[in-house]
Amino acid sequence: MSDPARLSKLSTESYKGVRDFFPEDMAMEKAIFDIWREVAEKYGYEEYAASVLEPAELYRAKSGEEIVNEQTYTFTDRGNREVTLRPEMTPTVARMVAARRRGLAFPVRWYSIPNLFRYEQPQRGRLREHWQLNVDIFGADSAGRAAGDAVEIEIISMACDITRAYGLTDADFEIRINSRVLVNHLLKDIFTLDETAAHSLSKIIDRKEKLPSEKFAEAVREIIGEKSSGTSSNLITILSSKTVAEFLKHCSAMEKNFIGITNIENVMTGLAKLGITNVRFDPTLMRGFDYYTGIVFEIFDLNPKNHRSVFGGGRYDDLLSLFGNDAGTARVTAVGFGAGDVVARDLMETYGTLENITREQTPADISICLIDTDDGSVHDYAFKLAQTLRAENVRVSIDFSKKKTGDKIAAADKRHIPFIIVLGEEEIKSDHITVKKLVTKEEKLFSSTEFKDIGNYIKKS
Amino acid sequence: MSDPARLSKLSTESYKGVRDFFPEDMAMEKAIFDIWREVAEKYGYEEYAASVLEPAELYRAKSGEEIVNEQTYTFTDRGNREVTLRPEMTPTVARMVAARRRGLAFPVRWYSIPNLFRYEQPQRGRLREHWQLNVDIFGADSAGRAAGDAVEIEIISMACDITRAYGLTDADFEIRINSRVLVNHLLKDIFTLDETAAHSLSKIIDRKEKLPSEKFAEAVREIIGEKSSGTSSNLITILSSKTVAEFLKHCSAMEKNFIGITNIENVMTGLAKLGITNVRFDPTLMRGFDYYTGIVFEIFDLNPKNHRSVFGGGRYDDLLSLFGNDAGTARVTAVGFGAGDVVARDLMETYGTLENITREQTPADISICLIDTDDGSVHDYAFKLAQTLRAENVRVSIDFSKKKTGDKIAAADKRHIPFIIVLGEEEIKSDHITVKKLVTKEEKLFSSTEFKDIGNYIKKS
Repeated sequence: MSDPARLSKLSTESYKGVRDFFPEDMAMEKAIFDIWREVAEKYGYEEYAASVLEPAELYRAKSGEEIVNEQTYTFTDRGNREVTLRPEMTPTVARMVAARRRGLAFPVRWYSIPNLFRYEQPQRGRLREHWQLNVDIFGADSAGRAAGDAVEIEIISMACDITRAYGLTDADFEIRINSRVLVNHLLKDIFTLDETAAHSLSKIIDRKEKLPSEKFAEAVREIIGEKSSGTSSNLITILSSKTVAEFLKHCSAMEKNFIGITNIENVMTGLAKLGITNVRFDPTLMRGFDYYTGIVFEIFDLNPKNHRSVFGGGRYDDLLSLFGNDAGTARVTAVGFGAGDVVARDLMETYGTLENITREQTPADISICLIDTDDGSVHDYAFKLAQTLRAENVRVSIDFSKKKTGDKIAAADKRHIPFIIVLGEEEIKSDHITVKKLVTKEEKLFSSTEFKDIGNYIKKS
Repeated sequence: MSDPARLSKLSTESYKGVRDFFPEDMAMEKAIFDIWREVAEKYGYEEYAASVLEPAELYRAKSGEEIVNEQTYTFTDRGNREVTLRPEMTPTVARMVAARRRGLAFPVRWYSIPNLFRYEQPQRGRLREHWQLNVDIFGADSAGRAAGDAVEIEIISMACDITRAYGLTDADFEIRINSRVLVNHLLKDIFTLDETAAHSLSKIIDRKEKLPSEKFAEAVREIIGEKSSGTSSNLITILSSKTVAEFLKHCSAMEKNFIGITNIENVMTGLAKLGITNVRFDPTLMRGFDYYTGIVFEIFDLNPKNHRSVFGGGRYDDLLSLFGNDAGTARVTAVGFGAGDVVARDLMETYGTLENITREQTPADISICLIDTDDGSVHDYAFKLAQTLRAENVRVSIDFSKKKTGDKIAAADKRHIPFIIVLGEEEIKSDHITVKKLVTKEEKLFSSTEFKDIGNYIKKS
């Protein structure tokens, strides 16, 4: 409070690219978090959390210097430690599982709802901070291949339940799946690319949807040239396959019982048995991160207004081996996905699910409207009444503002508070109050000895 | 994944001074948050939130350069903006209310559970990040003095309910209250100190509990000397008063109907009428922050093992006037408090409240233990069964690990999962499964057409 002249100009704006959550925004955010928590917990997943601050080396190790420097918030603390505001949760959860790998009872099923930071130029829909559901299952694969595919079925089934909970029907979206093992085999063994060329090409394939088809073809040709085992146009035809059968037809060198093919078929069959049939094989699906090692998937919104990938995940079996205490022990397999709050809110707005939430949001079950706010005994009575109601789990708001009584009732109505009690000298003298339901205008009288019954009355009406 | 040699040394430790929340930690954290949310919502308070990143000027304005530089995490982003990881929530909520002050219907009752950062040398109990309940009521005072005191009664009553919910009885703690108006009047008018001397002295009074009594007396003497209107020992006697009556007896120059005195008496009387009688006037209570302008209070744990202030708050009527859009409008009054998660957990551990939470924590209601995990049809059956149960809001965990069946049951028991289903070829052939309650060994057989009744059965047993 040192310089009033400067202070008078203090801005009420938040930091660029982040959001303030006023109660009406928070209600929607909580509705999204509730969906996430409810679905994850039905699948037996437990919530964990960590600080948004992580040692910068956690990301450097995995992603290379570039990402740490250009796309993250990284700074040096006064102990000369480099600190990063986490841009994703997977390195954190891998670190935590690695830290306790000897004590944890695998499989470990965990979820978290962290906020994540990315340094973006702020623009519509490109925020610097967002919240994300992260779901992961670790070490579930010791039972062998059948159980391995079971993990993917569990995870994708959960992703499907979340999308349905957003308000989408199965006709509104598609689950796209692919296998990194399959893509690696295709590029390295069948198209005989070396590590570097295969990596570059997989990055181009990842961007296929964003490139005009000629540009894509040109980029593919540039990397693979015209090798003996295939041509670039041949590869493009293979990548355009819409089913496994079509893929095998186009790619005669692929073994029908290759593990990558079998995994995809097992997952699609398993999901179909659960009634999840909006699943499509997509050999161009990569899901960005280099750490994926097996099945990858995404939820794709088919609505012509959106027509985009909304979230996804996959298997990343090698990430835990980055940590120091891994030496000599079996690797911990992992499958997971992340789903963001901004996309969730967009979807729920598109599909009309958020309207109910806005309609039902209210700060209290009952408003006690004081007639004479200068009279201390009215306050005392109101506080005592509120205390009784709160003990019965009723949410009570006392309106001791200077407004006229009619305006206080209107204010309660506007905020969707369903019940009111008008309280003045008369009520106190008679030791009786009237509970009024605003929607129906129904009224019920209670004597002071009956105040504890108001909670039940409200819940039943 | 660029340098495997370096990567193998990646540490599993979190950043210094922050915490990882493994599921068992998270369960306790959520139990604390649940208490906070439940009490705040019973009082009609709505949840809001904001980003942990704030423009650095928000704290500089209020606290002076020193705090921004030495006690906060502040860094410069690539757009050359100074950014701070919020060290407290009050400036943020003041900013948000100021931003919408024309649109909000006052009084505004809000709460939030933000994480806050302080740059501390990490040591036991001194964390760099903690979570804090923040409760505030804005603009409730237009109804005049009676309503003004009503706000304090509401806020302190809520703080008391939270402390009781931690597991403390009223005999375990004390609510200490004071008035900044009273202290200012005492120092400036009665002891005729100028602004600077009064401010320095109030900082010393704030530290009274931490100083040996001779040190305190010396520091007081140094500032006030031996003025005409009183001596330093006279002031120390006044400050040692345990009741308002004692204070007035020691300080004959204080008017009995001075507003600061009246406020304290009103609040104590109002709380007593709600059965809250563990309230004590403490003229040395300051509660740190310079922005307090009226009643301040704290919850003090009387347990000899702790004997410390656990949380508190007060009135801060001038903070919103720091913001640019305030010109020409009436000031927005405010009363609030903050309660931290670390102290809450300590208290709940001391008073035994957390034990039940640990005992009840379980990742699922039922575990489906697969006998033959290599048989795909067992998986299919388990997934279908789980889907049916989840649709009935049962939390289901499928154990498809390689463990022996007996070990799977033991694992479920160890994690407090109350029910199990053992599933193998036999169950599938007969199309019947047995739900077993682990504690009582009670068993019940269900045919596949009855699977949807399992949810109800579990909830009733």
